[in-house]
Amino acid sequence: MKMLRIETPGVAHYAYVITDGAEAMVVDPRRDVEEYLNAARSLGARIRCVVETHRQEDFVMGSARLARESGASIVNGDHELFGHGDVRLPDGARFQLGGLTVRALHTPGHTPESMSYAVHTDDSGPAWAVLTGDAVFFGTTGRTDLADAERAGENAALLYDSVHDKLAPLADTALVLPAHGPGSVCGSGMADRPYSTLGEERRYNEVFTLDRGEFARRKGAERLPRPPYFRHMERVNLGGGLEPVLRPGSVPLLDVSTFATGCGDKLVYDSREPEGFAGGHLASSYSIWLGGMPVFGGWIGDEHSPIYLVTDRDADVDTAALHLSRIGIDNVQGALAGGFGAWRKSGRAIETSGVITPRELHEQREAFQVLDVRDADEFASGHIPGAVHTYVGHLPERGAELPLVRRRPVAVTCSVGHRAGLGVSLLLRAGFDDVRNVLGGMTAWQALDLPVER
Amino acid sequence: MKMLRIETPGVAHYAYVITDGAEAMVVDPRRDVEEYLNAARSLGARIRCVVETHRQEDFVMGSARLARESGASIVNGDHELFGHGDVRLPDGARFQLGGLTVRALHTPGHTPESMSYAVHTDDSGPAWAVLTGDAVFFGTTGRTDLADAERAGENAALLYDSVHDKLAPLADTALVLPAHGPGSVCGSGMADRPYSTLGEERRYNEVFTLDRGEFARRKGAERLPRPPYFRHMERVNLGGGLEPVLRPGSVPLLDVSTFATGCGDKLVYDSREPEGFAGGHLASSYSIWLGGMPVFGGWIGDEHSPIYLVTDRDADVDTAALHLSRIGIDNVQGALAGGFGAWRKSGRAIETSGVITPRELHEQREAFQVLDVRDADEFASGHIPGAVHTYVGHLPERGAELPLVRRRPVAVTCSVGHRAGLGVSLLLRAGFDDVRNVLGGMTAWQALDLPVER
Amino acid sequence: MKMLRIETPGVAHYAYVITDGAEAMVVDPRRDVEEYLNAARSLGARIRCVVETHRQEDFVMGSARLARESGASIVNGDHELFGHGDVRLPDGARFQLGGLTVRALHTPGHTPESMSYAVHTDDSGPAWAVLTGDAVFFGTTGRTDLADAERAGENAALLYDSVHDKLAPLADTALVLPAHGPGSVCGSGMADRPYSTLGEERRYNEVFTLDRGEFARRKGAERLPRPPYFRHMERVNLGGGLEPVLRPGSVPLLDVSTFATGCGDKLVYDSREPEGFAGGHLASSYSIWLGGMPVFGGWIGDEHSPIYLVTDRDADVDTAALHLSRIGIDNVQGALAGGFGAWRKSGRAIETSGVITPRELHEQREAFQVLDVRDADEFASGHIPGAVHTYVGHLPERGAELPLVRRRPVAVTCSVGHRAGLGVSLLLRAGFDDVRNVLGGMTAWQALDLPVER
Amino acid sequence: MKMLRIETPGVAHYAYVITDGAEAMVVDPRRDVEEYLNAARSLGARIRCVVETHRQEDFVMGSARLARESGASIVNGDHELFGHGDVRLPDGARFQLGGLTVRALHTPGHTPESMSYAVHTDDSGPAWAVLTGDAVFFGTTGRTDLADAERAGENAALLYDSVHDKLAPLADTALVLPAHGPGSVCGSGMADRPYSTLGEERRYNEVFTLDRGEFARRKGAERLPRPPYFRHMERVNLGGGLEPVLRPGSVPLLDVSTFATGCGDKLVYDSREPEGFAGGHLASSYSIWLGGMPVFGGWIGDEHSPIYLVTDRDADVDTAALHLSRIGIDNVQGALAGGFGAWRKSGRAIETSGVITPRELHEQREAFQVLDVRDADEFASGHIPGAVHTYVGHLPERGAELPLVRRRPVAVTCSVGHRAGLGVSLLLRAGFDDVRNVLGGMTAWQALDLPVER
Repeated sequence: MKMLRIETPGVAHYAYVITDGAEAMVVDPRRDVEEYLNAARSLGARIRCVVETHRQEDFVMGSARLARESGASIVNGDHELFGHGDVRLPDGARFQLGGLTVRALHTPGHTPESMSYAVHTDDSGPAWAVLTGDAVFFGTTGRTDLADAERAGENAALLYDSVHDKLAPLADTALVLPAHGPGSVCGSGMADRPYSTLGEERRYNEVFTLDRGEFARRKGAERLPRPPYFRHMERVNLGGGLEPVLRPGSVPLLDVSTFATGCGDKLVYDSREPEGFAGGHLASSYSIWLGGMPVFGGWIGDEHSPIYLVTDRDADVDTAALHLSRIGIDNVQGALAGGFGAWRKSGRAIETSGVITPRELHEQREAFQVLDVRDADEFASGHIPGAVHTYVGHLPERGAELPLVRRRPVAVTCSVGHRAGLGVSLLLRAGFDDVRNVLGGMTAWQALDLPVER
Repeated sequence: MKMLRIETPGVAHYAYVITDGAEAMVVDPRRDVEEYLNAARSLGARIRCVVETHRQEDFVMGSARLARESGASIVNGDHELFGHGDVRLPDGARFQLGGLTVRALHTPGHTPESMSYAVHTDDSGPAWAVLTGDAVFFGTTGRTDLADAERAGENAALLYDSVHDKLAPLADTALVLPAHGPGSVCGSGMADRPYSTLGEERRYNEVFTLDRGEFARRKGAERLPRPPYFRHMERVNLGGGLEPVLRPGSVPLLDVSTFATGCGDKLVYDSREPEGFAGGHLASSYSIWLGGMPVFGGWIGDEHSPIYLVTDRDADVDTAALHLSRIGIDNVQGALAGGFGAWRKSGRAIETSGVITPRELHEQREAFQVLDVRDADEFASGHIPGAVHTYVGHLPERGAELPLVRRRPVAVTCSVGHRAGLGVSLLLRAGFDDVRNVLGGMTAWQALDLPVER
Repeated sequence: MKMLRIETPGVAHYAYVITDGAEAMVVDPRRDVEEYLNAARSLGARIRCVVETHRQEDFVMGSARLARESGASIVNGDHELFGHGDVRLPDGARFQLGGLTVRALHTPGHTPESMSYAVHTDDSGPAWAVLTGDAVFFGTTGRTDLADAERAGENAALLYDSVHDKLAPLADTALVLPAHGPGSVCGSGMADRPYSTLGEERRYNEVFTLDRGEFARRKGAERLPRPPYFRHMERVNLGGGLEPVLRPGSVPLLDVSTFATGCGDKLVYDSREPEGFAGGHLASSYSIWLGGMPVFGGWIGDEHSPIYLVTDRDADVDTAALHLSRIGIDNVQGALAGGFGAWRKSGRAIETSGVITPRELHEQREAFQVLDVRDADEFASGHIPGAVHTYVGHLPERGAELPLVRRRPVAVTCSVGHRAGLGVSLLLRAGFDDVRNVLGGMTAWQALDLPVER
Repeated sequence: MKMLRIETPGVAHYAYVITDGAEAMVVDPRRDVEEYLNAARSLGARIRCVVETHRQEDFVMGSARLARESGASIVNGDHELFGHGDVRLPDGARFQLGGLTVRALHTPGHTPESMSYAVHTDDSGPAWAVLTGDAVFFGTTGRTDLADAERAGENAALLYDSVHDKLAPLADTALVLPAHGPGSVCGSGMADRPYSTLGEERRYNEVFTLDRGEFARRKGAERLPRPPYFRHMERVNLGGGLEPVLRPGSVPLLDVSTFATGCGDKLVYDSREPEGFAGGHLASSYSIWLGGMPVFGGWIGDEHSPIYLVTDRDADVDTAALHLSRIGIDNVQGALAGGFGAWRKSGRAIETSGVITPRELHEQREAFQVLDVRDADEFASGHIPGAVHTYVGHLPERGAELPLVRRRPVAVTCSVGHRAGLGVSLLLRAGFDDVRNVLGGMTAWQALDLPVER
């Protein structure tokens, strides 16, 4: 018996390949499925089932493609929201994976259709592990506001019951195998640990340490941004996800002139670090660092947007495009060959933007309007006194309502400077004159013990 | 029979692996010899000789190590300046490499000991190829000022004779296999082509198209910088080069605090692109872009200097250290783990520097002192009117003599912005207040048809 | 300007990527085009043209796919046999590739439509190189019997004229860049060298060293096998080749039981070395070593045959399938997971076959019938006295006519033992009782100075 | 917090890299430490401790080298048998790894110095995991006969107490992180599962399911071979292991003639599969399949033996040499370039050996002497009726005492055919006339339901 956990960076997603030595199941695969195929091959196993815990919202699933490529069946629950599937398991149903027994558990709350799967090494023994999808993460649960933000508390209570009725009875020694780790947009406050067990979770996970009412209240009060691409993900995942259109090397590298002609009024995503963007960038381009591409690329553009990429180096083009494709954004029409350096030496127009260190901002606090673009929970946990808040993803639509004056300097901050970089580029597009990225963000601010307001 | 040309980026160096199918020779290997060993292996051949055309000045040779690892003999000429070697060939001597015949030709001029090697597929036939070292490049020859800059013209005449007496008699169809391509500091004005023949060179190479006197005059008038690490290279190459001290992954990645403590008054090389450096950097660090490391790393530090690296990302650390090790700079004591981003979020002091576009500089020309840091030939071929000139490598020692005022803004330019970045960091260290990198340099300036002075 | 030669092993095919630094052409690409796309990318160039020298017969072209993926145009000649193409050049036409000039030369003889292309670095200068397709190889030319074996001599005369009229006038210094090297089935007797020039070829290539009549006679007398897959290649290449259906990892690895059920009366190709096959194999399987797959896989099966693979290890499956796909054989339905070792331990039936060393055969010559399965020219150049001859590819259809007795031992030989391995497996299928592979074949036989008949 | 388990194939060894996010410990590293360095780097962590559970016997440790390369301290127990170490922890001692607390537990029994280490995410909470070395494996414990085979039962009782006194009190939810998995020679009967917990082990591990007396009796009766290289491992591991002498590509590939001259009376290891060896091999060579190299290479040769390698292909040479180096066998003097195929075509002497299928053996049982070379426990669990037994590793010294007649056919069997291959080559060297490998071994025999004796 073998198990491999395969992580998708940027979206903090975990898929699992589990095999009894001959037959394998892949749980919650993403769209680019090569890594799972290779993993099964390296384990000497044949993929028999593609198992889904729920219809993912934050990435395009690879169930349909993986099933087609491997000849496997898609296995999920009998709730209609799954929308597809070869084997639709009701709560309590079992199936064999070679010598392993897998038991399906309906655990709604994160979403109505959510399933967990208990894996038993022998039919009569306790569960060896439980695949919890977004029901239980390490230290917390999945968010419960997706179906209807107004009913987040109610759904949290439902999730509480799912956990306590279906999962709690399993053995304390069962490994907990969730679909996400810290950094995912499907929850907040995940514990940073590599493996855990049900007994361990019982000790510190808020779904166990709080009572039902308190848990529902706390979850109901959570204010998490809902990325706009979630809707597209839900739609395509109804059918088992999308086939890939991307192949390494397939994004055209365009010379400066072709790029400049093409990108015109299209979206230009600049994947360099914030300092590089500050030191020079194309007018109207969006600063979205490489690691943030699979989230923020979907806040700015959507599946229909033609996108042009500016990178630090050509080798980043594939990474950026792959990140985008994982959230269904496939319309990348080209990247600047040679990276920003090629643009620089062409003599074409270059704009710069400002930076400011936390200490400088503190010393000149009066001279600046401060905009904090983290999410509401992060802002609530401590911010620069007097800072205005809006989540960076909401800036395009809500920016105009903010109490900020275009002709006065603005310092934009987030946790370390990446989201602030996107915020800076959005304010520049909105016509602000002097916009500065607070280098190092609140992490640096707090490392310097500068004053914080809560 | 097979031949592979193996390029060393940054120093534009070509080594060759040539085999008759069973026995191979490697010509002019660099210090990290794995690529040659693998090449011979992929060709199914055993390395019998490590052949040297001359004692290289611009990189550490790998002759001794490659010979040791492969059991091969080191073959070079009988001139004492080679300093080592198992087989010391006089002019005209031959040796067999399996079914191939190799003929040694003494072709001094670039350096006194320089050898060329004609390769014959059959003993009685014309040369199939000639390995020319730094004697003949595509379109030009090696520089002739290294032994004694005062006698560059005299050496050029000697080189002219070497070429005409020893190489010209070979077949027009002989492939010319030089040790360097465009971008090398061992010559200037190389033609940009992948392969050439002696007949082809006869048609357009200045050593053939000019007469002896004119050639000697032109070479004698060339003013090429002589990097300070050349002396160290010559010394270590006397003994066949150096063993490597570097292994991928062996440069310690230091957390911010350890890095900050350690780097103190040591050299900090920042390998990011100029815009990133402008947007934020450590005080007193040197801006040396990744591709420029194997040249400019040796203008700032030497083989004794403890060096600390700041990169864009951890994956660049090995590249930077490898580049430095190729010019004998092995004392890299650590790199900032997590790249500049880690420094940013620590709250530690960050400095910024300025940039300016060519058009802006043109429009505000009066407000700026302009410093051009390209080499003398590049400067002579066209520069911004009124620019002051010094080669970037000479800035540390000659900067103080420049007619530049510290309190007035300076715009620093080169060809595309990389060397100017180093120039900017040097002026900042020297106490200048406002230093700007002219983005895109003279390439952008000329693309915009802005006025040029010659 | 840069050039990369990209080799396809097994079919000894050379494609070229040539660029002036910004625009690239790819000449004669194979079906799996990723390597060309990556090469162009590494050279910082954009592919503008996919150039075809002729409609290849020995592999599936990638013109159509490469053009589609890169946005390039397909460029070839105006002869109708090309069957497709965006730009159809008449003899003598020129086109620009950035700063390079390319001149089209109609050079029929190998096939009626064959084109060569002279590449000039400047418009008025001599050719820097000439892409000769299958017109001129190193030391010889392409075969001239493909269109009509009866008219091979006539076509050879035509090819002779093409070479002397169109190519000979180019500069002696021009690099000759052919589409194949030694080992290709598109010619015989290629010289083993990595690079050559027109002047060099003039010295030793039979198309220059023989007179027209003698050349035509010699070529007319050549007896080269014509692989059956050539017809399929010609058909698909009429439209610019095929899209790939293969992706690394996509061949299903089947457990023993599934494999055994599936392979039934299908073709089973065993890619292990001859000794492994002799030591144990599946009944009725074909011994086709890995490197021989892209030729002999197409002698046994065709584009419609369902194929099952037995390998030494799983990592060979992709290689074998890729080799097959390059000759249009895409119907690989599965490979034995775990290689032959998995079959061995299942307890299923295993057959063995015999081997014999040359010395043993020599000593027991009387006891054996000897079958030599090399091609006619190889056989003519020297064989074991009394050996029967037929080309291995012709064994399935002509085997029954051979003067061999099924109940008497047969020793099968080729050059080193690979094709003999296939011959052994064919005779076993044909019901022979005792079949031995002469280990090391004629290479070993001759190394031992055993008697040879001519 | 992150954890990576790094497996060493062939010896079924698990090392662990555990980090709180900034500081890492590496537990029980092998000699070639690059993978650990890279792992720590990928986790963004600095290696602070190299932790040893005990002085390993079955592979060369990399503690000293890893400590030197990373600047880490070596941490182990205060028992004198460790022989070295920077920090020597007594039972119960704690240390901090950033935010993690590690508690040392002396758990003798497998060896006297054996330590376990409990890892706590917070100081006051239960153990999150326990590193058990060879004390506890999944389903069983380490063998207890190494120090003194006569006292195996006594040591088993000691180990029982260690487990019950020191480990049993830890939380049921603690992950069990052992140093070996199934296939290791440090124990027998490990359960095949990827992860387990203390509670899970409590349910089925024999150290928990048996009582003290029964456990001691069972372990005391185990008869496991003790590889001769264990002594060398223990000696070098006293000092923290060995520096590597191997670099990929550093084993000389020798042409046939050099190989033949060199190997003379030296050990020749043939790494091909048994069928390939049967089909042809060098006289007197040893058949040791690639995966068995890190065990059986050390039964035949020792750290002083000059070794020559014959492989299936050149790419296997590095793998074979790396496997050998991991058990301290560094004197690999060369490998046959081009694999066995090169030998085959040289015409040099080739020997063959026999194979037989289980069904054939069953049908001709009377004609064969049967030798079973598995270990005593495997033999006891079921063998071919009338088979003679000796462990393959003992054949060289005990072979002469076996009741086997040289002039009569012998069928050699093991579990699948690999060890039998080595057995075949040993009997051939001992002068047996007709030796056959039972293809598929007892696995195939039992799959066919052939009669078994117990």
